[in-house]
Amino acid sequence: MIDTPKTNLQWLLADRPIDRAVRESDFKLHEAPIPEPKEGEFVIRVIYSSLAPVMRFYMLDGAGIEEPLEIGDVMRGRGVGQVVTSKNPDYMPGDIVHGKMGWQQYAVADGSPYYLMYKVSQREVPVSTALGVLGMTGFTAYFGLFDIGKPVAGETVLVSGAAGGVGSNVGQIAKIRGCKTIGIAGSKEKCELLVDSLGYDAAINYRDGDIGAQMDATCPDGIDVFFDNVGGEILDEGLARINKYARIVACGQISQYIGDGSPRPIKNAYKIGRLNALMQGFLIYDYAPRLAEAESGMVQWIREGRLTYQEDILDGIERMPEALIRLYDSKNKGKQLVQVSPDPF
Amino acid sequence: MIDTPKTNLQWLLADRPIDRAVRESDFKLHEAPIPEPKEGEFVIRVIYSSLAPVMRFYMLDGAGIEEPLEIGDVMRGRGVGQVVTSKNPDYMPGDIVHGKMGWQQYAVADGSPYYLMYKVSQREVPVSTALGVLGMTGFTAYFGLFDIGKPVAGETVLVSGAAGGVGSNVGQIAKIRGCKTIGIAGSKEKCELLVDSLGYDAAINYRDGDIGAQMDATCPDGIDVFFDNVGGEILDEGLARINKYARIVACGQISQYIGDGSPRPIKNAYKIGRLNALMQGFLIYDYAPRLAEAESGMVQWIREGRLTYQEDILDGIERMPEALIRLYDSKNKGKQLVQVSPDPF
Repeated sequence: MIDTPKTNLQWLLADRPIDRAVRESDFKLHEAPIPEPKEGEFVIRVIYSSLAPVMRFYMLDGAGIEEPLEIGDVMRGRGVGQVVTSKNPDYMPGDIVHGKMGWQQYAVADGSPYYLMYKVSQREVPVSTALGVLGMTGFTAYFGLFDIGKPVAGETVLVSGAAGGVGSNVGQIAKIRGCKTIGIAGSKEKCELLVDSLGYDAAINYRDGDIGAQMDATCPDGIDVFFDNVGGEILDEGLARINKYARIVACGQISQYIGDGSPRPIKNAYKIGRLNALMQGFLIYDYAPRLAEAESGMVQWIREGRLTYQEDILDGIERMPEALIRLYDSKNKGKQLVQVSPDPF
Repeated sequence: MIDTPKTNLQWLLADRPIDRAVRESDFKLHEAPIPEPKEGEFVIRVIYSSLAPVMRFYMLDGAGIEEPLEIGDVMRGRGVGQVVTSKNPDYMPGDIVHGKMGWQQYAVADGSPYYLMYKVSQREVPVSTALGVLGMTGFTAYFGLFDIGKPVAGETVLVSGAAGGVGSNVGQIAKIRGCKTIGIAGSKEKCELLVDSLGYDAAINYRDGDIGAQMDATCPDGIDVFFDNVGGEILDEGLARINKYARIVACGQISQYIGDGSPRPIKNAYKIGRLNALMQGFLIYDYAPRLAEAESGMVQWIREGRLTYQEDILDGIERMPEALIRLYDSKNKGKQLVQVSPDPF
């Protein structure tokens, strides 16, 4: 059980993981007072904080995704929290909101687009889901699969990072759509989860040797949709087996986020042209006008028991760095979160 | 001046260019009688025969594009010709048609989709254009650029193989659309052609050393649309410089068609996902229902003098192998054709 914090513990960036993996000493815990809102601002008590592989890039210079953090800045990250004080008429104390809150117990925000703030209205499932299946993670699965992957019943859908936040949703949604689903993960335990709990037709353990041979065995009709969260060698082996008119959803490159960060060469990119295929990346925030469409569809599937989700929640803000490193070590099972303060529901 | 042939000279496949470049001894000239049509068939006197880089794959097994040819088969290829005898009510003697005719002086066809036969109706420009700017080559430029590249006025459009059949059209059409156009070619002479005759804003000679540095110099605002006919290193250097939401038209990989044919690794494919970009291949025959749209638009631009085209026509069926090898040696200037029999217009 977590107490309501009386001060504001924050994680500051202490060092950059240049040409190496992230480590706990890259962060420094700092105690600050609980902030007061200025005109137009509101203060949020963070309940759940979300971890994502992209955070390594936030820590580096010039990643091209967001402004780089300075040493000593509060680490950037999204969370779900409750408004406690407000000088903004659109956000009242008690409101549950989702948005950029940083690695801290109390966050200040205003209504500007930078904070990507939106109110969480549904109470049918826990509010932590706004950081996962009913948040950007789930919506990424939904729009990446439907808008780019365009799966047709009977097609073969291959998903890498299949036990992760996005991947665990992709497999289930593709299954609901009537596809054959094959998931790739990094342990025997995760592969069992894919088949036993997430409805995948087959699983590939990429630590079990020849990935290409495993793809041949599980995708005998080739790959129609490849939802790739990994990049690197797994992307390359998948590209080698795509069918004509295949769609590759270039969702993530966790394999690029570890090690020295230099790009891994891909041998089979030429198949995209040769086979009239498509490979596309996307920014989930570009779908902002359509998020309600995804949410309502997915709440319905959760109610019907057709879409399950798994959260991997560590307790206490002290564990934020540990939680992030778990992602790079493939230790998380489902969406990696940290509970930062009490959940009132 | 070419005489009307009295027999049917044909080029047969004599050897496969496995792990090597195409050479003249891969083909054997054969003299056959002029064919007679069976019920439903018609016989065409081939006027112009078209050469394309993909032909090396026709000569190999299992290229995955069309059925492989057997040794001794007439080489596959498209042409423009005139119907001379017919037992098919849809094709009358005198009709000018475009379609699969093979490397020969007289071809037999029927109305089936295999032959991709369509009548050439326009006489505003020479009928040879049905193999180039007003044929699949030009239509490939048109649909690849507009449907996948989606260029917006003011954007930077980079074209590789820019002096070739497709590329020379792409640059001009992108310019008509108000884009900044940069072309890549393999000689000083071709680069001058790009800027002086094809309206490119700048040209890159890939034999002049550092391709990336030349791209930096000519595309200071990055690349929004990359129409790639080449693949390999040039694709990789272009990917390294794409902007957010860039579109890469994966039209050809001539760099893969030479040498041993093994795929060249691409380091920057990860940028597609990272920058929410799109890379797509396409099959021009999928646009069959919309070809008239492209033809009417392009005839209009030709009439207005805004779209010029260049043909590189060798005389005599004897020169077919030489004409094909010219493509791989980057010697052609514009669409490579061979005139096989007299042009009545």
